[in-house]
Amino acid sequence: MWECIEALLFQPYLINSSTLQPQHTTSNTTSQHHYSNGLSRPPMSSRFRATCAIEKEEMLMERPASLLREGEDLQWDNPSTSSMRARFETMIRKAQDDICAAVEDVDGIKFREDSWMRPGGGGGISRVLQDGNVWEKAGVNVSVVYGTMPPEAYRAATGGGSDNKPAANKAGRIPFFAAGISSVMHPKNPFAPTVHFNYRYFETDSPPDVAGAPKAWWFGGGTDLTPSYVFDEDVAHFHQVQKQACDKHDLAFYPKFKQWCDDYFLIKHRGERRGLGGIFFDDLNDRDAEKLLAFSTECANSVIPAYIPLIKKRKDMPFSPEHKDWQQLRRGRYVEFNLVYDRGTTFGLKTGGRIESILMSLPLTARWEYDHQPEAGTEEWKLLDACRNPKEWAPVS
Amino acid sequence: MWECIEALLFQPYLINSSTLQPQHTTSNTTSQHHYSNGLSRPPMSSRFRATCAIEKEEMLMERPASLLREGEDLQWDNPSTSSMRARFETMIRKAQDDICAAVEDVDGIKFREDSWMRPGGGGGISRVLQDGNVWEKAGVNVSVVYGTMPPEAYRAATGGGSDNKPAANKAGRIPFFAAGISSVMHPKNPFAPTVHFNYRYFETDSPPDVAGAPKAWWFGGGTDLTPSYVFDEDVAHFHQVQKQACDKHDLAFYPKFKQWCDDYFLIKHRGERRGLGGIFFDDLNDRDAEKLLAFSTECANSVIPAYIPLIKKRKDMPFSPEHKDWQQLRRGRYVEFNLVYDRGTTFGLKTGGRIESILMSLPLTARWEYDHQPEAGTEEWKLLDACRNPKEWAPVS
Repeated sequence: MWECIEALLFQPYLINSSTLQPQHTTSNTTSQHHYSNGLSRPPMSSRFRATCAIEKEEMLMERPASLLREGEDLQWDNPSTSSMRARFETMIRKAQDDICAAVEDVDGIKFREDSWMRPGGGGGISRVLQDGNVWEKAGVNVSVVYGTMPPEAYRAATGGGSDNKPAANKAGRIPFFAAGISSVMHPKNPFAPTVHFNYRYFETDSPPDVAGAPKAWWFGGGTDLTPSYVFDEDVAHFHQVQKQACDKHDLAFYPKFKQWCDDYFLIKHRGERRGLGGIFFDDLNDRDAEKLLAFSTECANSVIPAYIPLIKKRKDMPFSPEHKDWQQLRRGRYVEFNLVYDRGTTFGLKTGGRIESILMSLPLTARWEYDHQPEAGTEEWKLLDACRNPKEWAPVS
Repeated sequence: MWECIEALLFQPYLINSSTLQPQHTTSNTTSQHHYSNGLSRPPMSSRFRATCAIEKEEMLMERPASLLREGEDLQWDNPSTSSMRARFETMIRKAQDDICAAVEDVDGIKFREDSWMRPGGGGGISRVLQDGNVWEKAGVNVSVVYGTMPPEAYRAATGGGSDNKPAANKAGRIPFFAAGISSVMHPKNPFAPTVHFNYRYFETDSPPDVAGAPKAWWFGGGTDLTPSYVFDEDVAHFHQVQKQACDKHDLAFYPKFKQWCDDYFLIKHRGERRGLGGIFFDDLNDRDAEKLLAFSTECANSVIPAYIPLIKKRKDMPFSPEHKDWQQLRRGRYVEFNLVYDRGTTFGLKTGGRIESILMSLPLTARWEYDHQPEAGTEEWKLLDACRNPKEWAPVS
C-alpha cells in the first residue's frame, strides 16, 4: 500500500527531522475536522521518532472533503480551472469509491475507513476489508503528501536540467507534492488471484508566495496480478485489459510497461517474480499532463474489468487443504517481496509513514516451509515456472 | 538463520562476481564427498546470479567430517595443536548435536539434515524440524564461509589500525574466514516461547603460502527469547541463565550484552522489540581468544538449560483460537524484523547465500491484521508493553 508514492518521496535523504516543519499551515485541518480522541496510539520509541521524516498523522472522525492544502484546488495560471493536483485527487478518490463499491458488491462485507491528515498538510483515507466472504484482506488507500527534498535528489529525479530551477526554500530544499492511490486485495480461495495497483502524481512545488507553474511533475503507477494457480485464460484476460487501456494512448506503452513490471516485481533472492505481472511505469512526463492524467484514469478504470471477472469465476471453486497451503506459501513470497524489495514499503517503514496503511499490503496469513520444491509438471510448478520465465500474455499483433 | 555471520561478512561491498574465484582449491570437497544428483535446484535468474557474492553451494549426500579447507585444522604456529578455526567448528558442531538431540527428545520428531560445501571451501549443515509435535518449525544451522573483503571494509571492521596490516591478495582484497551456529525455534503452543541464538567466530586470513598469525579476529553472538505471552518467571529464568553464563567470565558482560540485545532487536517502525531480549554481542576481541572461545562455548551450552524447561512447562497448556491468533500476529512481527532489519538476513538475501538456510528463521505461519490494538491491561497488551519498555529481568545484585 502507499507503496510507490513513498518510494518516490520518502527516500533516505528525507530522514531529517528539521525538515518536518510545515511550509505553511492552514486553519483547514484544525477547524473543519473532528479529531478522534478514542483511538489509543502506541507511543513510538523516542529514539526512532527523532529520525522520522514524516509528520505524525492525526486521525479524523470524518472523511475530509479534500486532502489538499487550502487554495490548491485551482490552477495557478487560470484560477477558473481546477489544478492538476485537484483533478488527480478527484480521480483517485473516485477510483477508490468505484473499486471499493465493486469489491463490496462481490464480497457482501463493507470496507472499514480510516482518515487522517497531517498538521502541515496532506493526509489519507485507508479502506480495509478484512476477513470478508471472498477476500481475506483487501485495502485501498488514497493519500496526499507535502514534503521537501534536497536539490541533489531533485536533480537525480528530473535528469538534472539546470535551465528550469525550482524555487528552493530557505534550507535549500525543494518542496514537493505527491498524491496517489494504492491497493492490494488478497482473496480467500486459492484459485482466485491477488491484485495490486497504484497510480500516483508528483510535482515539485512552487512556494505559496511565488507565482509560477510547477517546475517538474510526473506520473507513475501500474496494476499487476498475483495468482497462486495459473489459468491461462484469466491471466490473458487481465493482460489484455491492461493492453487495451495502454493501446488507446500509445501502442508503445504496453510492451514497455509490461517489461518494466516483470523487472520490478522480481524477488531477486528467489530468481522468481512475485506474480504474473501486468504494467508498471514511472517518471512519465513525455507528453501533456492532461494526456497522462487521461491515461492514468484509464488505467485506474481498468482495474474492475481486468480483475473482478476473474474473482467471480474463481471465488467458489472447490479446493483442498494442499491448494490452500500452496496459496499460503505464495503469500509468504508476497511478504518477502514487499518487505525486502518494494521501494515504497521499505522506505515508508524507515521514514515513519502511517505503518498500518503501509503494511495493509501484507496478507492476513502467510507460510514458509523449508526448501519446498513442487514436482515438475504439477500445477504448483506451472505457476513457479511462469514466475521465473515471464510470458507474453497479450502478444502485440 | 545464519544471520549475524552473514551480517558481518556479506556486506554490499562483496557484490562483485570477480571475487568469487576460490583462493585455492582442495581435492577434499570433490574426492571425499558424494554430491547428490537427485536434487533439482531451480535455475536462478541469470541477471541475479551475475551479481552474487557467494559461490553456489553444492549439496552433499553425507555430512562432511569438517567444513574447513584441508590443512586448516592445525594451529599456524604450533602444528601439534588444533587451530582456533578447528576448535570453533568443533564447538558449534557439538552444540548443534546437543541442542538438536534435546529438541528431538522433547518433540519426538527428528530433524531433517542438509549439508553443502562450496567449491572454493566452506559449507554448512542445516537441520530443520518442521511441523513437529511441539515445534512448528525449528532450525539449527552451522556454516563456514571463506571470502574476501576490500581494505576499507577491513579498516572499518577493525578500527583502522595501520601497524598490523593483513596480507592482501592480488586484487587488494583481504581474505577472511567465518564460522557460526545459528538457530530459531518456533513452537506450536502460543504460551511456549520462540528462541533464537547465534554464535560466530571471524578471522582475517593469511594467504596459505604466508606463515603468520591471523591478522584480526573476533567473536560475536547472543541468545534471545520471543514469547507471545509473558510469564514473568519464565523470562526471569531465561535471563538468569544468560546472566550466570556471562558472570562466570566477566561481571560487566550481562548488563552490557542485555542492553545491546534490546537495542538490536528493535522493530523501528513499530517502536517495539521483536521479543523480550537476552544477550547480544559483537566484535569481541578484548581478551585472549581462548577465553572468548570458552565464553562462547558457555553461552552455547546455556541454550538448553535456559530454554528447554520453559518449553516443557508450556507445551501442553490449553489455549483458545484467540491465543493462537495473537501468536500468529507476533510471528508476523518476527517476519518484519528479520526481513526488514536483521543484518544477516537482508545482506544474506541480497548477496546470494543459501536462501533456504537464511529463511529457515521465518515461522511456518504468520498473520497481519489491520490496525490490531490489544486492549490495555490484557495479557496481549502486557506482552506489547514489555516489548516497548524493556525490563530488568535478572537485576544485577
